[in-house]
Amino acid sequence: MSNDNFIKLDIQRQKRRGYCEAVYCGCKTNEQLIQIFKNFKINKQNVIGTKATFEQFVALKREFKNVEYDEIAKVITLVQKKVERIGEIAICTGGVGDIPIAQEAAVVAEFYGSNVKKYYDIGIAGIHRLLENIEEIKRANVIVAIAGMEGALPCVIAGMVNIPVIAVPTSVGYGVSFGGISALLTMLNSCCEGITVVNIDNGFNAGYSANQINRLIMRGKK
Amino acid sequence: MSNDNFIKLDIQRQKRRGYCEAVYCGCKTNEQLIQIFKNFKINKQNVIGTKATFEQFVALKREFKNVEYDEIAKVITLVQKKVERIGEIAICTGGVGDIPIAQEAAVVAEFYGSNVKKYYDIGIAGIHRLLENIEEIKRANVIVAIAGMEGALPCVIAGMVNIPVIAVPTSVGYGVSFGGISALLTMLNSCCEGITVVNIDNGFNAGYSANQINRLIMRGKK
Amino acid sequence: MSNDNFIKLDIQRQKRRGYCEAVYCGCKTNEQLIQIFKNFKINKQNVIGTKATFEQFVALKREFKNVEYDEIAKVITLVQKKVERIGEIAICTGGVGDIPIAQEAAVVAEFYGSNVKKYYDIGIAGIHRLLENIEEIKRANVIVAIAGMEGALPCVIAGMVNIPVIAVPTSVGYGVSFGGISALLTMLNSCCEGITVVNIDNGFNAGYSANQINRLIMRGKK
Amino acid sequence: MSNDNFIKLDIQRQKRRGYCEAVYCGCKTNEQLIQIFKNFKINKQNVIGTKATFEQFVALKREFKNVEYDEIAKVITLVQKKVERIGEIAICTGGVGDIPIAQEAAVVAEFYGSNVKKYYDIGIAGIHRLLENIEEIKRANVIVAIAGMEGALPCVIAGMVNIPVIAVPTSVGYGVSFGGISALLTMLNSCCEGITVVNIDNGFNAGYSANQINRLIMRGKK
Amino acid sequence: MSNDNFIKLDIQRQKRRGYCEAVYCGCKTNEQLIQIFKNFKINKQNVIGTKATFEQFVALKREFKNVEYDEIAKVITLVQKKVERIGEIAICTGGVGDIPIAQEAAVVAEFYGSNVKKYYDIGIAGIHRLLENIEEIKRANVIVAIAGMEGALPCVIAGMVNIPVIAVPTSVGYGVSFGGISALLTMLNSCCEGITVVNIDNGFNAGYSANQINRLIMRGKK
Amino acid sequence: MSNDNFIKLDIQRQKRRGYCEAVYCGCKTNEQLIQIFKNFKINKQNVIGTKATFEQFVALKREFKNVEYDEIAKVITLVQKKVERIGEIAICTGGVGDIPIAQEAAVVAEFYGSNVKKYYDIGIAGIHRLLENIEEIKRANVIVAIAGMEGALPCVIAGMVNIPVIAVPTSVGYGVSFGGISALLTMLNSCCEGITVVNIDNGFNAGYSANQINRLIMRGKK
Amino acid sequence: MSNDNFIKLDIQRQKRRGYCEAVYCGCKTNEQLIQIFKNFKINKQNVIGTKATFEQFVALKREFKNVEYDEIAKVITLVQKKVERIGEIAICTGGVGDIPIAQEAAVVAEFYGSNVKKYYDIGIAGIHRLLENIEEIKRANVIVAIAGMEGALPCVIAGMVNIPVIAVPTSVGYGVSFGGISALLTMLNSCCEGITVVNIDNGFNAGYSANQINRLIMRGKK
Amino acid sequence: MSNDNFIKLDIQRQKRRGYCEAVYCGCKTNEQLIQIFKNFKINKQNVIGTKATFEQFVALKREFKNVEYDEIAKVITLVQKKVERIGEIAICTGGVGDIPIAQEAAVVAEFYGSNVKKYYDIGIAGIHRLLENIEEIKRANVIVAIAGMEGALPCVIAGMVNIPVIAVPTSVGYGVSFGGISALLTMLNSCCEGITVVNIDNGFNAGYSANQINRLIMRGKK
Repeated sequence: MSNDNFIKLDIQRQKRRGYCEAVYCGCKTNEQLIQIFKNFKINKQNVIGTKATFEQFVALKREFKNVEYDEIAKVITLVQKKVERIGEIAICTGGVGDIPIAQEAAVVAEFYGSNVKKYYDIGIAGIHRLLENIEEIKRANVIVAIAGMEGALPCVIAGMVNIPVIAVPTSVGYGVSFGGISALLTMLNSCCEGITVVNIDNGFNAGYSANQINRLIMRGKK
Repeated sequence: MSNDNFIKLDIQRQKRRGYCEAVYCGCKTNEQLIQIFKNFKINKQNVIGTKATFEQFVALKREFKNVEYDEIAKVITLVQKKVERIGEIAICTGGVGDIPIAQEAAVVAEFYGSNVKKYYDIGIAGIHRLLENIEEIKRANVIVAIAGMEGALPCVIAGMVNIPVIAVPTSVGYGVSFGGISALLTMLNSCCEGITVVNIDNGFNAGYSANQINRLIMRGKK
Repeated sequence: MSNDNFIKLDIQRQKRRGYCEAVYCGCKTNEQLIQIFKNFKINKQNVIGTKATFEQFVALKREFKNVEYDEIAKVITLVQKKVERIGEIAICTGGVGDIPIAQEAAVVAEFYGSNVKKYYDIGIAGIHRLLENIEEIKRANVIVAIAGMEGALPCVIAGMVNIPVIAVPTSVGYGVSFGGISALLTMLNSCCEGITVVNIDNGFNAGYSANQINRLIMRGKK
Repeated sequence: MSNDNFIKLDIQRQKRRGYCEAVYCGCKTNEQLIQIFKNFKINKQNVIGTKATFEQFVALKREFKNVEYDEIAKVITLVQKKVERIGEIAICTGGVGDIPIAQEAAVVAEFYGSNVKKYYDIGIAGIHRLLENIEEIKRANVIVAIAGMEGALPCVIAGMVNIPVIAVPTSVGYGVSFGGISALLTMLNSCCEGITVVNIDNGFNAGYSANQINRLIMRGKK
Repeated sequence: MSNDNFIKLDIQRQKRRGYCEAVYCGCKTNEQLIQIFKNFKINKQNVIGTKATFEQFVALKREFKNVEYDEIAKVITLVQKKVERIGEIAICTGGVGDIPIAQEAAVVAEFYGSNVKKYYDIGIAGIHRLLENIEEIKRANVIVAIAGMEGALPCVIAGMVNIPVIAVPTSVGYGVSFGGISALLTMLNSCCEGITVVNIDNGFNAGYSANQINRLIMRGKK
Repeated sequence: MSNDNFIKLDIQRQKRRGYCEAVYCGCKTNEQLIQIFKNFKINKQNVIGTKATFEQFVALKREFKNVEYDEIAKVITLVQKKVERIGEIAICTGGVGDIPIAQEAAVVAEFYGSNVKKYYDIGIAGIHRLLENIEEIKRANVIVAIAGMEGALPCVIAGMVNIPVIAVPTSVGYGVSFGGISALLTMLNSCCEGITVVNIDNGFNAGYSANQINRLIMRGKK
Repeated sequence: MSNDNFIKLDIQRQKRRGYCEAVYCGCKTNEQLIQIFKNFKINKQNVIGTKATFEQFVALKREFKNVEYDEIAKVITLVQKKVERIGEIAICTGGVGDIPIAQEAAVVAEFYGSNVKKYYDIGIAGIHRLLENIEEIKRANVIVAIAGMEGALPCVIAGMVNIPVIAVPTSVGYGVSFGGISALLTMLNSCCEGITVVNIDNGFNAGYSANQINRLIMRGKK
Repeated sequence: MSNDNFIKLDIQRQKRRGYCEAVYCGCKTNEQLIQIFKNFKINKQNVIGTKATFEQFVALKREFKNVEYDEIAKVITLVQKKVERIGEIAICTGGVGDIPIAQEAAVVAEFYGSNVKKYYDIGIAGIHRLLENIEEIKRANVIVAIAGMEGALPCVIAGMVNIPVIAVPTSVGYGVSFGGISALLTMLNSCCEGITVVNIDNGFNAGYSANQINRLIMRGKK
C-alpha cells in the first residue's frame, strides 16, 4: 500500500477557506507526514502540524530545512510565504500547567496572521491577578481563555468584557477532573454569555478561530 | 423572605459589557420575574428573557404592556430603546425539529442588533439542500449552525466557508442521542477547524455571541 | 404490615451525636411520617423533616399543632425546646434559582442553633456583586456557597477568605449541567483549597455541617 | 493446566455458518494460538486471526510456513484452500488515521471472498473529495464507511446512495472523542437511514458482514 | 414564520436513494406534518411517518383520507402506488415488551417491499423457544433481532446462521438497563460476527436496512 | 512510619466469619505483605493473597518456604492446615481470554474447601459447546459463569438449570466493552432469574461465595 | 395481531428449572397478562407477576378470582397448589424508603417456599440498630440486604456473618445517587467478600435467588 | 519563553488567606518548580508542594538545602519559620492501600499547624477495629476519613460522632471502583449528615480544610 494513493491533499483549500491546511500529526507515520509536507512544498503553500512529537519533527527536518518546531506547543511549521500579523488576541491561562495548550494556540494564531499577548497563571484562586490585568486584556479583539481543573477562568473573564471569549478546557488535574471533562462542562454551562468552547486541549482550533475573528474585525465590514 | 433583597440587578452591565442583561426564566417565579423587569423598566433599559413559558409571559404582560413573546423561541422581550440592526448572521438548522432553538438564536441576535437570514432543514441527509444554499450563506459575517441527532451539519458547513461557525447541539432525537450529548460531541470533535460550540439547546448564547462578532466586524478595527 | 415494627427511631441520637434526628421525607408515606413524629413528640425531642411536600405538611399539621413549614425550603420542623442561636454562618448563592436550596440550608442551620446571614444572587457573571459583599461575608465563622450551572462561586469565594467554605451544587441549569453534575465537578476540582462539598441540592447537610463547625468554633477548644 | 482441554474449536462452523472461524488474538498467549492454528491445519480449514501483534505472528510463523501477516491491519491468515473473490465492496475512510481499521476490514473481506475498492481520506472537512468519488463508490454492492473524531462520513455517504452502509467508528482523536464513543454515537444517531454500525475499531466485523451481504447479493435470491 | 419556507422536501430522493422519504414525527407539529404530507401527495409519492402519536394521525386523517396508522408500531403510512413485496425478512424479539419496536420494523419493511415473518418472545431465558424456530428463521434473507434488558438474543442467533443479523436494542427494562444502553453494548460487543446494530428503539432503520439488503439479494448481482 | 502499627489483622475472623482472611495484594508493598503473612503464620492460620504479581510472590517466598503461587490466577496461598474439599462447583467461561479470572475463582474455591470442575471456552458464539456440557454442569451445587465482551453466557446457563449462578464479568474485549462494564450490565439485566453478580474480574469473590454456598448445601440444614 | 401467537409460554419450565415462571408486568398490556395467566391456569401452575400496577391487578381479578396483590411489593400471585415454606431468609433494609423492594423480595421468597424474617430500617447511620439484631440475623440460611443512597448496609453485614449476602441496591435517594447506581457500585466494590449483587430495585431476583439457596441448604447435599 | 514572566506568585496570600501557598507539582517542570520555590524563599515564606515525584525533589534539593520530602505522601516542604501545632485531627483509613493519601493529609495538616493522630486500616470489613478506636477518635476536633473501593468508612464514623468528618475517596480498587468514583459517590450520598467531601485522592485539601477548622476551634469564637 503506497501512501501516495491514500492521502488526498486539499490544495485548493487556501482559496476556499482563506487559510492553508493544518495537519493533525497525532496518528500519522513519519512517511505519511513527509509525503504531506512534500505536496505542500511543491504547491508553495505554508503548512502547520499540531500535536507533533519531537521524533516527527526530526524526521521532517531531514527532508525540509525550513521546518520549525515549538517544543512546548508541539507544533511544526513550514512557512514559504510569511503572513503579516495584524490586530491582537489575548491568550490567558488559569495555571502554569495550561501553558502548553496556550502556546499551541499562540503559535497557531501567529502563524495564521494575528498578534498575540499572553496572560498566563491568572486563575481564580487568586483573583487579584486577573483584576490587575483585565483592563489590558480588554484591549484585544478576541480572548482565548484556557483552564483545567474546575475551568472557571473564562466564565469570570466573560463577565467583565464585551468581546468574544473562546474557552479551551485542558486535561490538567486529577480525580474528577476526568481529563478535562469537568472544565469543559464548566465552560459550556457558563452562566455568562459570550463564551464559545472548543474540544479539550484543542489549542489549535482556539488559535485558528480567534485568528479568523480577529482578522475579520481588522478588515472591517464586508 | 422578600425578593427585593435577593435579586441583585446588574444595571451597569450595559456599560460594562456593551449589551443589556438577559434573564434565564427557567427556574424563576412570576413574582421574581416581575420584580426583575420592574427594575429594568425604571432604569430605562431593554431586557430579554429566555426559556420563558407562556404563563410567565401572561404574568409579565399584565404588568408591562410592551413586553412581547415569541412562542416558538420561548423568548420575552421588553424594548425601551430600539437597537439598530447591522451586518448579517446566517442561521442554519439540520432539521425541522431544531427550529425552536434556531428561532431563539434569531430573536436574540435581532434584539441585540444584527440582521438574520434563516436556512432551515438543510441537514446532511440530503446534502444537495446545503449545496444549493452555501454560496448565499457564505455572504454572512458569522454562521450559527444548529443540529440534533448526529449533529454533523456545522462540520460540513465549516469545511466550505472562511467565516466563524458557532455550533449549537439540540436535544432532538432519541436513544443514544442522549438529549443532545451525541450532537455536542460531534461538534467538539469536528475534524474541521473554525467551529466553536455552546451548550445543548443554548440558542441564546449562540445568538448573543454571533451578534457580538457580527457587530465587531461591522464596526471594524479598534 | 404495621409501620410500628419497621421504623427504628434513634431516640438516643441527641445524646450520641449532639443534635436531634432529621427525617428525609422524600420517599415516605404520610402514615410513616406521622408515626415518626409521634415518637419524637412522646420523647420530647425536636425533629426536622427535609424535602417535604406541602401535602405531607398538611397531613402532619392535622396531628401536631406546632409543626411549621417553610414552603421554599420544603422543610417541616417540630420544635419542643428551642435551641439558642449563636455565631454566624454566611449563606451565598450564585443565582436566584439556587434560593430554595439556600433556604433549606438556612432553616436547618437556624433550627440546630446558628445565626445566618444571606447573600443571594452574587454569582460570578457580575463579580462586582461578590466583591461588594466579601468583607462582610468574611466575618462569619463558616460559609455555605451554593451554585448551579457552572458552579464556580465557591471557588472564587474560597480564594478570598480564611474560613471554611462548604459548597453545594444545585440542579439549576439545562443541557450539560446534567442536573447538577457539572457544578459538583467544578467544586470538587476547585484549584482553591479550603472547599469541601456535599451532594447536589443537599442544603440540609450543608446547613447541618456548617452549624456543627460554627458551634464548635463558638464553644472554643476542647 | 494444558490448553488442549480448554479450547473448544468449532470445526463444524464452516458448514453451519458458511465461513471458517476467526480468532481474536487480543488476549491469547502464543501457546494458545499455536494450538488453535494446529487444529485448523489438521482439519484443512482456513483460519484468520485479528488484532494480532508482530510477536504473535513470529511465533506462529515458526510453526506454520504459510501464515501471512498484514502489519497495518494486524491480521494473520492461514489459507489452505483459496476462496474466489466476487462482487465488490467499497471501503472509505474519513482520514489517514483510520487506515489501519480500513485495512483490517479489507483483508478480512478479501479473505472471505469479496473484491475490495479503497477510498481513503475522503472525510467531510473537504467534502469535494467525497463528491469526486461518489459515483464510483455507488457501483459497489456494499459500503464500509470508517471514521474517527466526529464520525460523520457514513451519514453523508448514506444520504447519497441506495446500498447498505456499514459504519465503523475508530478511536482516532483526542479530548471528547472518548476513544471512539463520539464517532459511534454519531453513526447510531444518523438522521439518514440505511446505516448499521459495529463496535469501535471493529474492522473485522465490518469486513465480515460486508462480505456476507456482498456474496448473498452476487449469488442472488434463494 | 410560515412552515412553507422552512421545510425542504426531498422529492428527488426516490430517484437518488431508491426509496421514498420517511418522516420522523417525534418533534413535529401537526401543521408541519400536514404540510409535509401535502407535498408528497402532490408529487404522487408514498410517505411513511414514524414515532407518530394517535393525535398526529387524527390530524392527518382529517386532511388525507388514505393515511393509515399502526397503533402498536406508531407508524403512519400514505400509499399512493403500492410496492410489491418480495423475498423474506425474519423479525425476532426476546420478549413481549419488544413487540412495538418489532412491529415498527415490520410495517416499515413491508411498506418498502419485503415479506416479513415474525418470531416473537423467543428470548434466551428459555432457549428451547429459539431452538424450535431456528431452522425456519434461517430460510429468510435477513434477520432483524430485537431485545431489551440484557439484549443477548441477536448474539445467540448470529452464532447459528449464515445470513446478516441486524440487531435492535430496546429500552425495555429497569435499573441498569439504562433505557436500552445495556442491550446496545451487548450487541456491539457480540463475540459473534455478522451482527450490525442500529440505535435504541430504532425499528424504522432496522426495517429499512433489512429491506434494502433483502431486495438487493432478490434482485441478484449487478 | 512503621507498618506494624498500621495493619490491623483480623485474627479472630476465622472464628467470626468461618473462613480465614484474604489479602488483596493490588496496592500493597512487599514489606506490608511480609508483615501480614508473618502475623498469620504466627497465629497458625491459612492465608490467601489475590491479584498478586510474580515479584510479590518472590519476595514472600524468600521469607516463607511454603507459600505457593498460581501464575495464571495471580493467587498466593500459605496453607498451614489443609481444608478438606467437599461438594462441587462448576466454573464456566465464555472464551479463552476469561481463563485467568476462572483460575482465580477455582484456586480460591479449592483453598476454602470445594471441589471444582472446569468448563472453559463454551461461550454463546457456538452454543452447541454449552449444550454438550449442560447435563454435567447441572450436577454441581453452584455454577460460576464467567464472560467478557457481551457477557451473555451466565444468562443462557441460568435459563437451563435450577441451581445458583454466580456471574463474573471480565475486562476482556475492546471498544465499547469498556473494560467489562458491558458484560457487567448484561449480567445484572439478565431476563433470567437466579443470577447474582460480582465486580468485574473479581474471581476471588465468586470463588469465595460459591464455596460458601456449596459448603452450606453439603452440610445441610441448620 | 393476536397475542395468542406471540407469547410463547414456558410450561415445562417448572420441571426444567424447579420453580414456576414469573412474569415481569412492566411493559405488558392487560390483554397480554390475561392471556398469560389463562395459560398457566389451564396448566394448573402457580404464577407470580412483578412490578404490577393496581390497574393490572384489577384487570386480572375480573378474570381470575384467586389472584392476590401485595400493594407495597407490587406483586400479583395466583396460587393453585401451595408450596410449603421451609428454612429462613433474613431480609434487611437500610431505611424506610427501601421497604417496597424488601416486600417484593419477601413476597417472592415466600411464594417459592421460604420462611422470611424482616429487619427493616437498620442502616449504618445508627449502627447500634444493626448491632442489636445481628445475632438473630445470623441464624438465617441466607441474607437479603437492601439499601439505597450510599448502599453500605450489605458490606457492614457481610463482615459479621458466615452466610451468603445477596445485596439489592434501590433507587432511593437524590443528586448523585443516580437512581441507585451509587448503591450498586458500593455493593459491587465491597471490600468484604461473600456479597453478590442483583439489579437496582430487583427485589424479585433477590427473593428468587435467596429462596433457591435456602431450599438447597435445607434439602442438604445431593 | 522565560518562566519568570509566566508565574504569578501569590506572595500576599499568607496575609489574605491566613496560610502560605501550596504548589500542585503534578504538571510542572523542574525549572518551573525551582523558580516558584526561589520566590518564596526570597520572601521568607514557607511553601509546600504536593503530588511531587522523587525526581522533582532531587532537583529542588540541589538548589534548596532545607527542602524535605515525604516519599509516601509525595509532599515536598520548605519551612522557613515553623508553625506551632495545636489541637488534634484524627486521620482514619479503611485499608492499607489508602495510606499514601492519609500521609499526604497528615503532612499537610502538620505543616499548617495541627497535631495529627492516625487510625489506619480500620475499615468496615472488620468493624470491631473501628469500634475499638471510636472513643479515642471522638476526642479530636475534626476527623479525616479516607477510603477506596466501596468507601463506606466515613459514613459509619459520622453516625457515631458529633464532630465534622471530612471524607476523602481514594482510587484504590479495581473493576467498578472506577478510579475512586464509586467511593466518591458513596460519601456524597451518605445517609448520615455531617460529612463533607473532597476530590478523589485529594489528601492535600482534606488536610488543609481539617487544619483550618481545627485551628478555628482552638482559637475559639471571634
